[in-house]
Amino acid sequence: MKMKQFAVIGLGRFGSSLATELINEGLEVLGIDRDEEAVDEMADVLTHAIVADSTEEETLRSIGIRNFDCAIVAIGDDIQASIMTAILLKDMGVKMVVAKALSVLHGKVLERLGVDRVIYPERDMGIRVAHQLVNPNLLDYIELSKDYTIAELSVPKCLNGKTLKELDPRAKYGCSVVAINKKNGVIIAPTATDVLNERDVMVIIGTNEQIESFEEELVGT
Amino acid sequence: MKMKQFAVIGLGRFGSSLATELINEGLEVLGIDRDEEAVDEMADVLTHAIVADSTEEETLRSIGIRNFDCAIVAIGDDIQASIMTAILLKDMGVKMVVAKALSVLHGKVLERLGVDRVIYPERDMGIRVAHQLVNPNLLDYIELSKDYTIAELSVPKCLNGKTLKELDPRAKYGCSVVAINKKNGVIIAPTATDVLNERDVMVIIGTNEQIESFEEELVGT
Amino acid sequence: MKMKQFAVIGLGRFGSSLATELINEGLEVLGIDRDEEAVDEMADVLTHAIVADSTEEETLRSIGIRNFDCAIVAIGDDIQASIMTAILLKDMGVKMVVAKALSVLHGKVLERLGVDRVIYPERDMGIRVAHQLVNPNLLDYIELSKDYTIAELSVPKCLNGKTLKELDPRAKYGCSVVAINKKNGVIIAPTATDVLNERDVMVIIGTNEQIESFEEELVGT
Amino acid sequence: MKMKQFAVIGLGRFGSSLATELINEGLEVLGIDRDEEAVDEMADVLTHAIVADSTEEETLRSIGIRNFDCAIVAIGDDIQASIMTAILLKDMGVKMVVAKALSVLHGKVLERLGVDRVIYPERDMGIRVAHQLVNPNLLDYIELSKDYTIAELSVPKCLNGKTLKELDPRAKYGCSVVAINKKNGVIIAPTATDVLNERDVMVIIGTNEQIESFEEELVGT
Amino acid sequence: MKMKQFAVIGLGRFGSSLATELINEGLEVLGIDRDEEAVDEMADVLTHAIVADSTEEETLRSIGIRNFDCAIVAIGDDIQASIMTAILLKDMGVKMVVAKALSVLHGKVLERLGVDRVIYPERDMGIRVAHQLVNPNLLDYIELSKDYTIAELSVPKCLNGKTLKELDPRAKYGCSVVAINKKNGVIIAPTATDVLNERDVMVIIGTNEQIESFEEELVGT
Amino acid sequence: MKMKQFAVIGLGRFGSSLATELINEGLEVLGIDRDEEAVDEMADVLTHAIVADSTEEETLRSIGIRNFDCAIVAIGDDIQASIMTAILLKDMGVKMVVAKALSVLHGKVLERLGVDRVIYPERDMGIRVAHQLVNPNLLDYIELSKDYTIAELSVPKCLNGKTLKELDPRAKYGCSVVAINKKNGVIIAPTATDVLNERDVMVIIGTNEQIESFEEELVGT
Amino acid sequence: MKMKQFAVIGLGRFGSSLATELINEGLEVLGIDRDEEAVDEMADVLTHAIVADSTEEETLRSIGIRNFDCAIVAIGDDIQASIMTAILLKDMGVKMVVAKALSVLHGKVLERLGVDRVIYPERDMGIRVAHQLVNPNLLDYIELSKDYTIAELSVPKCLNGKTLKELDPRAKYGCSVVAINKKNGVIIAPTATDVLNERDVMVIIGTNEQIESFEEELVGT
Amino acid sequence: MKMKQFAVIGLGRFGSSLATELINEGLEVLGIDRDEEAVDEMADVLTHAIVADSTEEETLRSIGIRNFDCAIVAIGDDIQASIMTAILLKDMGVKMVVAKALSVLHGKVLERLGVDRVIYPERDMGIRVAHQLVNPNLLDYIELSKDYTIAELSVPKCLNGKTLKELDPRAKYGCSVVAINKKNGVIIAPTATDVLNERDVMVIIGTNEQIESFEEELVGT
Repeated sequence: MKMKQFAVIGLGRFGSSLATELINEGLEVLGIDRDEEAVDEMADVLTHAIVADSTEEETLRSIGIRNFDCAIVAIGDDIQASIMTAILLKDMGVKMVVAKALSVLHGKVLERLGVDRVIYPERDMGIRVAHQLVNPNLLDYIELSKDYTIAELSVPKCLNGKTLKELDPRAKYGCSVVAINKKNGVIIAPTATDVLNERDVMVIIGTNEQIESFEEELVGT
Repeated sequence: MKMKQFAVIGLGRFGSSLATELINEGLEVLGIDRDEEAVDEMADVLTHAIVADSTEEETLRSIGIRNFDCAIVAIGDDIQASIMTAILLKDMGVKMVVAKALSVLHGKVLERLGVDRVIYPERDMGIRVAHQLVNPNLLDYIELSKDYTIAELSVPKCLNGKTLKELDPRAKYGCSVVAINKKNGVIIAPTATDVLNERDVMVIIGTNEQIESFEEELVGT
Repeated sequence: MKMKQFAVIGLGRFGSSLATELINEGLEVLGIDRDEEAVDEMADVLTHAIVADSTEEETLRSIGIRNFDCAIVAIGDDIQASIMTAILLKDMGVKMVVAKALSVLHGKVLERLGVDRVIYPERDMGIRVAHQLVNPNLLDYIELSKDYTIAELSVPKCLNGKTLKELDPRAKYGCSVVAINKKNGVIIAPTATDVLNERDVMVIIGTNEQIESFEEELVGT
Repeated sequence: MKMKQFAVIGLGRFGSSLATELINEGLEVLGIDRDEEAVDEMADVLTHAIVADSTEEETLRSIGIRNFDCAIVAIGDDIQASIMTAILLKDMGVKMVVAKALSVLHGKVLERLGVDRVIYPERDMGIRVAHQLVNPNLLDYIELSKDYTIAELSVPKCLNGKTLKELDPRAKYGCSVVAINKKNGVIIAPTATDVLNERDVMVIIGTNEQIESFEEELVGT
Repeated sequence: MKMKQFAVIGLGRFGSSLATELINEGLEVLGIDRDEEAVDEMADVLTHAIVADSTEEETLRSIGIRNFDCAIVAIGDDIQASIMTAILLKDMGVKMVVAKALSVLHGKVLERLGVDRVIYPERDMGIRVAHQLVNPNLLDYIELSKDYTIAELSVPKCLNGKTLKELDPRAKYGCSVVAINKKNGVIIAPTATDVLNERDVMVIIGTNEQIESFEEELVGT
Repeated sequence: MKMKQFAVIGLGRFGSSLATELINEGLEVLGIDRDEEAVDEMADVLTHAIVADSTEEETLRSIGIRNFDCAIVAIGDDIQASIMTAILLKDMGVKMVVAKALSVLHGKVLERLGVDRVIYPERDMGIRVAHQLVNPNLLDYIELSKDYTIAELSVPKCLNGKTLKELDPRAKYGCSVVAINKKNGVIIAPTATDVLNERDVMVIIGTNEQIESFEEELVGT
Repeated sequence: MKMKQFAVIGLGRFGSSLATELINEGLEVLGIDRDEEAVDEMADVLTHAIVADSTEEETLRSIGIRNFDCAIVAIGDDIQASIMTAILLKDMGVKMVVAKALSVLHGKVLERLGVDRVIYPERDMGIRVAHQLVNPNLLDYIELSKDYTIAELSVPKCLNGKTLKELDPRAKYGCSVVAINKKNGVIIAPTATDVLNERDVMVIIGTNEQIESFEEELVGT
Repeated sequence: MKMKQFAVIGLGRFGSSLATELINEGLEVLGIDRDEEAVDEMADVLTHAIVADSTEEETLRSIGIRNFDCAIVAIGDDIQASIMTAILLKDMGVKMVVAKALSVLHGKVLERLGVDRVIYPERDMGIRVAHQLVNPNLLDYIELSKDYTIAELSVPKCLNGKTLKELDPRAKYGCSVVAINKKNGVIIAPTATDVLNERDVMVIIGTNEQIESFEEELVGT
């Protein structure tokens, strides 16, 4: 069954973005922060937003926190508050507790306390941006496994008007084009006669080496 | 031509993660931070790491900043320093300047000053985590366009042993399975007789609505 | 058409002096400052004076800032607030935005953001006072161009009772006396027979060198 | 005799601008500030620059302050230090002491202590900028007396090609044009046949009312 | 086997007292504190005393912390540092980790992280002092079980010269006198003819109610 | 006569634990602290709890402090407040004043001012915990005199099933077993045929050396 | 005519002691301090006591300060506030302004501003206490001139029972005994037959040297 | 025997004035302060001046404090340091300990600790200045007893040229003139024919009421 009720504790940049997106998905979100200003800014966006100290058991109880499907501890810089909140949430029986870690050690403590999922937003985003900087045509990607990746690549000028047959990435680099996003729609499982145009976006699948050599070819051309 | 030399200004959680990943990709990275401790921690990782104030033109000049292919302004909380650094970098002729923005207004200023790419790591990560929380089977995703998405979904228990034909997502939901990541390798463009197992991961492509209804079916089963 | 409605943001020494003078000229002035005490002191002087944070778009909108003919950003030391306020004012359509810069780099950012006029009060006043210190008879001056200056010089004791003919600055130094300010009135375009008295003030026009050598003659006598 | 040796105490924005201009005029300037960073920034510009506390008599004595022709107390915000420095300078026999006041009360104290000239840079600059904002064509001005002003006005588009005769400001408004600054030089005491062009700058002299009504005519045309 | 090597982390009042006592018992003690002054004060007392940040894994490794038999986390007020230190110690394989908790929640976290023994010195001492205040004759006590206590009671004036037979606490209150501490030595398992004197100290054993009613009798007499 | 009314000044960890225990003993306790939060937390536990500054004579008088049987100065870190409170309490006639000292020097001052009992909770607890760490079987102990101790020792595995006769501590080490705490009750003054089981707890009495060698035997077996 | 109405500005230790003594003399005293607590403590003692900032002209005017006979500036540590208050008081026409100086330079500024009397309480008290420490019999003294002093000396044991004739200080040291303070009253202009007793106090007059040698004789005996 | 060696602890305004005066009297003075700047300023004045923390027993011992004849605790605002220093000085055997108290309660603690003399400089100076303000002719005074005072009064204009006989204070007010300080010397025990002149200073002795009515007469005339 899908989760419906979320509590987001900590309404900084990460927490408020996460909470807003949950609202956009049509879910109920309670926002909690010690800082009145942060709560005020989100008051109109969220289902509820309250000023409270999440390290006080009494506070969490009066909110009825254990009735929430999921609580996300998105506290910014106060590691102690993050840890104290996490242990309270787990002990009070919140079904799923997700917590943001500021360091590997912090993450280890959270895991040891039984947090269901520990996330490292800044670290993960750093890696993601690095990849995109290195490969200028790379728009986004999914790491399928240690070896395989799906990559979303913009079609460079030099390929304008070429068919997939002419490009033939499977033969040359071993990777497949599984979709082409064109101005007027997405072609899924494109055929050899489909034509690429500048500004199109290809979705390719392959091993990291295959995709990398393909990308280099594109840049180098 | 690929970029080779990067300067990362600001070695907080985001900056140091980004810089480390660039190093992992085999590139040269200069790290700069006002805080000695932050620099010390990255000294062994990066090509160079120096304690410097990036808002002083003289400092940037002595580093030879204009010879770098790309400079990333990853300054944590000091908006003024971020802006001053960005204008100096652009005026000194750095080819590509990427900067992290803390708010929409901050981002607007950076764009107006000519920054080539403005990123919002915390905001973007908030959105990404929200999606994954909402859809428990969703491991990762790429938004191809406003309508189309590629999603990486874990195969739930209830589909164990079924063939793609039995599942037939294209007929039922309109979305295609373009790859299956199995323990012993990735099947690209799987056929109707390929069998799904629990713990496999499917890569599907389709419109947001198609994927969403498919996901709901999976969860609901 | 003349501007009628001014908003002065930042009511420090410079801002409050500027705002008061505008009021003296018969204009309508709204004063804004984050500091309650600063606002209280100007409340009786200005048309309106409010405590507000000028970096919040909502605040500026509720004031109806876009209806003002001119907004002056006179924020004292907070460069970030100055920049954020300036971009908001321009984006909200204020016809003329004037901003005080604390440094050359700050000024550059303001210009890049489209500020119509950037001023450096402390720097300009430093230069002005320096000129007056160097030339004890120099009361005030206007730099007409890189070469020409109009200077207001006090008549030293040694010239008491002399006619312009006797002094003959045009012949001796190449500069002209265009007016003499005497106790009982100003003589515009004085003639050769007009007599100078101690405590009179001459207005002369000429190249910088001409005026300088004239001044030195006066001091040296 | 002209003053040759200056001491500038306080190297903030005002003090450092003043000190730099004195250097530009070919004079010797000693800069003093309690803040090491401020001194470092001016070290290459000034004859000498030292880190010192100007409220300690011993310090001033060791500098040989009484041999300076003029000392300018340009201390930024510390009123107590400004007052203590001023009394020490006067008591140690500095010939001319100039001091910046932050408020009317501060200025009164400085005068009572015998300071030779008290200046209010922010206040004066506020007034000057206000005048220029009110009169868009007004570039600069000198207040000759309570009634008379010399103003530097840009020639608006509408006067392009007109002779002074056609304009005839003396007849219409009572004020005289004493010089016209044209691209190729300054015409001193222009005649009735001299032609005005857009982008020229007129220097006019008259009573405040005369100039004001002339300006309004220019704007209103 | 007995433990020989102890590390005491945090040299405040509790930590330094504990460390000193271990030294007095003839053991080797390494003291660690972030505060130089605290380390200096203990340098002559302990086997080793170093200034170090115990939340840095590298630091603990270079000390060879895993060779210690027991590490006591006696950090004063910094809960975050206490938690981070505790998890590092456990993960690095320290055989026994004892940690001081500042609150019940803090203690819970420490236990969840695998700390072998959590102590609450201030809380325990508060209870102990309370007991002694309530019962003026009570010098010290051991709680054998929820019901039974051994108490050390001073003999009040009124019992001076009485034999145990006369007092007969077993018959009257159900508790036994197991020892009498007299000026010239301790009588273990005293007999009915042993005489009590003022300033003697009795050791009695019994249920809490028995001892309490005996004490009240002593006070009330 | 027993004391009934207590005032606890300072509601930190030590003070609030002490005050709570006094309440548990059925006594009346007034809690006083300068910190509102500390008082709020104890308000429901204590008879009365007030926010007040105990260094103000007027405050203490209005509370009617001299009617209390005992006042405990449990102020955390503010030595000055501790001293000032103590002298006021003594001068206002409180019968018994107990005060917590942070250092030997602090304790000396308190004694000199006439405080009836000075306690050092952190120091004492440090010593107590040290003893228990050194002797793993030692659960608790009372120091009867400089030479004699009563110790509560857990029975180690190796003694399981042995009779006291077999163990014969009096013959071997000179110390006596005065009680055995077994699951189903306490045996006071056990006889030679009583059997020891693992998890039982012995209470022994003897000189420090006797007990120590007995303990070592237990550990070493 | 005697002064009746006093304003004491600054209610620290010196100011509140001074104000209280004026009240004791039957005068009307207004106390002013920026600190609410300081004002509260004196509210019951003084005629009026108000919380106000004495550096604001408006405040002083609304109090009607110019109607006071005397204003004492007893501001503790804030030299700037002391100076600003002093100039305002003088300019508003307070008949007599007395001000406490913290240093010689501060005192000089106050004098230059026209303060009627500048006092240095700590310095003067330091000198006074020094004298008394040096001369153990010296109870108090008045410096009549640079040479002459009146001293109040306690009669040492060794003079017990001696007549003034026997002591004959005029003959031996040149100084005269002008009064003897005995238990049962003061003898003014005592005669040669008056007898000194231990615990009596002599008042002597003489040159500093005379008194000093007399004192040394007393100590030395 | 006279004291020769003094230690002054605390070199603020009071302490440094006291120490300087002791030096002026030809004595040896060691100055001690925690603040380096304060010590530097007195280094040239005193026999020795050291930066040290007087609350550390070891420090005082290494100075050899017990060899000093007298130690003055002149610590400015830190009551705790004052108390700790005082108890250490007494316990280490300093013969005479004098201490400055900031409040009555502070003074009480110092006395209870055995301080030989407690002084209240600000309070005493407040009283002294108050007396002088009330009585404009009163230059200084000594309180002989609760009833009797010696006062030093300036001779007002109205008494110029009068003989003591004409004035006859003994007859009119009951108080005696024991000395007259005239420009050319002091007249001790003046006779009825001695003439008073303006600017002379009378020393009178009498009861408080006598002197007060005499003073009022002088003012009123």
